[in-house]
Amino acid sequence: MADGLNMSRRIRRTPYTGRVEASGVRGFSVVNHMLLPKAYQPSVEQDYWHLREHVQIWDVACQRQVQLEGPDAERLAQWMTPRGIAKAQPGDCLYVPITDVDGGMINDPVLLKLDQNKFWLSVADSDVLLYAKGLAIGGGLDVEICEPDVSPLAVQGPKAEDLMVDLFGEAIRDVGFFNYGWFEFQGTLQLIARSGYSRQGGFEIYLNGSKFGPALWDAIWAAGERHHITPGCPNLIERIEGGLFSYGNEMTREVNPLEFGMGKFCKLDGSIDFIGREALQKVAADGVKREIRGVLFDGPACPTCSIPWPVMVGEAQVGQITSAIWSPRLMRNIGLSLIARAHWEIGTAITVTYPDGSQQAGEISGLPFN
Amino acid sequence: MADGLNMSRRIRRTPYTGRVEASGVRGFSVVNHMLLPKAYQPSVEQDYWHLREHVQIWDVACQRQVQLEGPDAERLAQWMTPRGIAKAQPGDCLYVPITDVDGGMINDPVLLKLDQNKFWLSVADSDVLLYAKGLAIGGGLDVEICEPDVSPLAVQGPKAEDLMVDLFGEAIRDVGFFNYGWFEFQGTLQLIARSGYSRQGGFEIYLNGSKFGPALWDAIWAAGERHHITPGCPNLIERIEGGLFSYGNEMTREVNPLEFGMGKFCKLDGSIDFIGREALQKVAADGVKREIRGVLFDGPACPTCSIPWPVMVGEAQVGQITSAIWSPRLMRNIGLSLIARAHWEIGTAITVTYPDGSQQAGEISGLPFN
Repeated sequence: MADGLNMSRRIRRTPYTGRVEASGVRGFSVVNHMLLPKAYQPSVEQDYWHLREHVQIWDVACQRQVQLEGPDAERLAQWMTPRGIAKAQPGDCLYVPITDVDGGMINDPVLLKLDQNKFWLSVADSDVLLYAKGLAIGGGLDVEICEPDVSPLAVQGPKAEDLMVDLFGEAIRDVGFFNYGWFEFQGTLQLIARSGYSRQGGFEIYLNGSKFGPALWDAIWAAGERHHITPGCPNLIERIEGGLFSYGNEMTREVNPLEFGMGKFCKLDGSIDFIGREALQKVAADGVKREIRGVLFDGPACPTCSIPWPVMVGEAQVGQITSAIWSPRLMRNIGLSLIARAHWEIGTAITVTYPDGSQQAGEISGLPFN
Repeated sequence: MADGLNMSRRIRRTPYTGRVEASGVRGFSVVNHMLLPKAYQPSVEQDYWHLREHVQIWDVACQRQVQLEGPDAERLAQWMTPRGIAKAQPGDCLYVPITDVDGGMINDPVLLKLDQNKFWLSVADSDVLLYAKGLAIGGGLDVEICEPDVSPLAVQGPKAEDLMVDLFGEAIRDVGFFNYGWFEFQGTLQLIARSGYSRQGGFEIYLNGSKFGPALWDAIWAAGERHHITPGCPNLIERIEGGLFSYGNEMTREVNPLEFGMGKFCKLDGSIDFIGREALQKVAADGVKREIRGVLFDGPACPTCSIPWPVMVGEAQVGQITSAIWSPRLMRNIGLSLIARAHWEIGTAITVTYPDGSQQAGEISGLPFN
């Protein structure tokens, strides 16, 4: 087989990898130098239907935490993102784009405020820890930056809340979306947020202490049996249908947050200072030249999108699909693409060009897909 | 199978991946968010014997370049490494550990000086680009930092020089070890260095321009046929035998360069300023508490080392093996481990503990293995 993954210490195992392997995982990806399960038996399609109906346990320990702690922690965090964080309180999770000097995206983590001088950035696939260290060293900031022994485990799906109540009590129902609370597990207090990389609802347990990993997995599994729990992972069908973007796929340093509809997360009125402000102010003033859209297109199930596929209107390239898959619910292929302004209206007819040169007809869709 | 790698745009293909797949690759790793071939038919052992006798073509495009360009490029490069770079000339390649404030290793790239104001850091698996950006932004340095479209392709093995002469002419013989020259390929000038991640000799072509990738691969392949060329990749047996270390395996932020015998690359006399100087001066003054060693140990071929294996002397842990494999030449298992000072003498008897709790007897070896 051409797509085996060679293991080494450099590709870090998680506190849950043993359980994941015992559960029949049949594929991984690598995120933040760590294993992310990406496929279980029997198929991504069956995982998709299950996720929409029941509940799944996901090893998302690769969502590493970059801990900023010290007198300048908030100052550094604010410097890194266009989103105003001054009003955040302990208990809040904030989705925060991180931008380069030119407005390009360096990551799109969730910021958790732990206390006035302590924050976690729960990061996607780039070494934000090294970026933060560089900024702190270069800027002479009084802040300690480390990767704590914290490994998120996600419980996702419509039955997630009932499962979590069984395990952590009724108080879990009071945790709002993108909020977190502290809950007891085996004599420890653990941070649990209502969040996750799906549109089906659920929680993420930011497990502090790798040694508790197998016990936490087993406890969730036991509580989940009556809710038809299965092992799962971020589901490509559900993610694309739901209009969730992926750093490294849709988002790179070549795109900016305004192109992804994140204007509400970009405070450009001059009241806060952050890296990339002038560049984003100019983009906002000029208007974005392209914006993220869905693409629906014909044909049998599309191949894996590992290099972008041009989106054409006639002879002109108007975008490129960076993630795509067959939707068994919509019975069409679905993809995500930045689309040039002149062509981004919903319903615009396009063609998608595969790497082998063949083409499929399709049209622009809003997000999420209906 | 449990070790499949799920493909996506985020796991970047290289200019050579198509050729690699056509050559029968059967496994990849991921380095710098990019595919690194890690296994071909028929076996790592046969690849090892071939590499020692003939010549191989390796897709090492994942050795990405972090380009520093501008008036402060040299200042930034020097700030990042304990090695003095002031005397480097265009044409020089320097192995430069990059250290954190506490002396811990952030990467171990090769620095190429292109001209007085332009450098490449050819990096191992961590986002040095983001670290450099952070330092430059934080420190207000006048330097542009980018990842150019440069994708190294390695030609390794004792017949590499003869092959390269066939393709690039006799002048290639004049390129010294860890030097580079400029050579013509299809009307372009390309940087070629005498370097590579093996002890068998060879070259790395820093191909500028992805579009030339397949043509370069094909030209090397054609020139290599009479030298018994095969597709290959960094070979774990040869690397460990040769005492070559791997960032993410042996080296992490928890170790410092003095523990890896890199004292000659650490200018600690106060004549240069770099991040981590005070920490390394203290380590040097106190003497390192552990140092890298080889470990020879018994038993049938060892399993894959994906979590460190404790190295014991009696009841005391004196180190941990971070890479290991069966050597078909030495007819024993070989591994790499930092070893505590009291036990690091060559020949010291140790035991290696596998994750299942079983143990193998062995002893400390010098590096490279004989």
